[in-house]
Amino acid sequence: MEFSSKLLENAVYEMSQLPGIGKRTALRLVLHLLKQPEERTNLLSNALVKLKSEVNFCECCNNISDTKLCEICANPKRDETLVCVVEDIRDVMAIENTSQYNGLYHVLGGKISPMEGVGPQDLNINALLKRVQKGTISELIFALSSTMEGDTTNFYIYRQLEGMEVVTSTIARGISVGDELEYADEVTLGRSILNRVPFENSIKAG
Amino acid sequence: MEFSSKLLENAVYEMSQLPGIGKRTALRLVLHLLKQPEERTNLLSNALVKLKSEVNFCECCNNISDTKLCEICANPKRDETLVCVVEDIRDVMAIENTSQYNGLYHVLGGKISPMEGVGPQDLNINALLKRVQKGTISELIFALSSTMEGDTTNFYIYRQLEGMEVVTSTIARGISVGDELEYADEVTLGRSILNRVPFENSIKAG
Repeated sequence: MEFSSKLLENAVYEMSQLPGIGKRTALRLVLHLLKQPEERTNLLSNALVKLKSEVNFCECCNNISDTKLCEICANPKRDETLVCVVEDIRDVMAIENTSQYNGLYHVLGGKISPMEGVGPQDLNINALLKRVQKGTISELIFALSSTMEGDTTNFYIYRQLEGMEVVTSTIARGISVGDELEYADEVTLGRSILNRVPFENSIKAG
Repeated sequence: MEFSSKLLENAVYEMSQLPGIGKRTALRLVLHLLKQPEERTNLLSNALVKLKSEVNFCECCNNISDTKLCEICANPKRDETLVCVVEDIRDVMAIENTSQYNGLYHVLGGKISPMEGVGPQDLNINALLKRVQKGTISELIFALSSTMEGDTTNFYIYRQLEGMEVVTSTIARGISVGDELEYADEVTLGRSILNRVPFENSIKAG
């Protein structure tokens, strides 16, 4: 792609460094900004710079927060004996949206992935172990994605927890609510039969 | 979507104002930037602000350019009697990529669209008429998209040119090279028969 302007080329290049944004999309986005009032570009640019320079992570759970402790950790109504271990703050948002969970979280910031050069030391695992050692947590719920990397991370943390007094659990895998059995994949269907739950539980969950 | 941080919410909001970027994609992009070194955010933000504040449009054809006259208009080897009228600088790039055109361009900056509140006065049409009045241009090639708005814009300019000594033409519409006839839409196929060209021409074009 040949550009008639270095400034344009540079802006398109920087935009195309974002994940999932190719050169063509980047050009479309940049030309859109060019057509808008200058204010729009400044607002976007300031919001990004401000977020990056002033962002703060909760001291306790590593969630993004504007305060030292995030709203969830600081909320006295939440059950601090229950901690849900997630990969990313998007997972916190997803679980919060269900309104079904009243415990705290622990955001790892990724999962162990030798292919991408992410080892245990790159994740927020030590802080989790320290939280457990304090003794207030009675149950850790692993809610990582059920991929090779997710399972590896779960298992690594599980091994590190040996000797500590804490119950570990993992979120249930099974057929999505509303899905038809005939279209489900065999692994999911198989697990959902092995890990069947008392019928009364499904009535309670509504 | 509920955010644990106002800074994050603001950055996601500004990002989601870009066309084709929803809230979820915006969150993904912003979180990606957060994981990258601060430099990346600054480079992106500076490139956008710099482009918007320092951008310059060619005095002659309205193409984006770093100089007063764009490279194409300033190139003495280009045929200045031939001007191709396009909607957008992306169209200039597309035509330049073909290496088949040696004339100049005129970028309108959009097309007449009453639905979107774009009238002739919002486009770069007066400058085009002035260029034609100078008398150096012998042919105008309309290369707008063949939509209702494109046709309206073509026709509007065509009417304004009445009495001026200039030949007007439009790029050929027809079946794409490599396409099979049975899958072509009727309008395109019909036009390609009506506007058939001498067989020798197709041999020359290779």
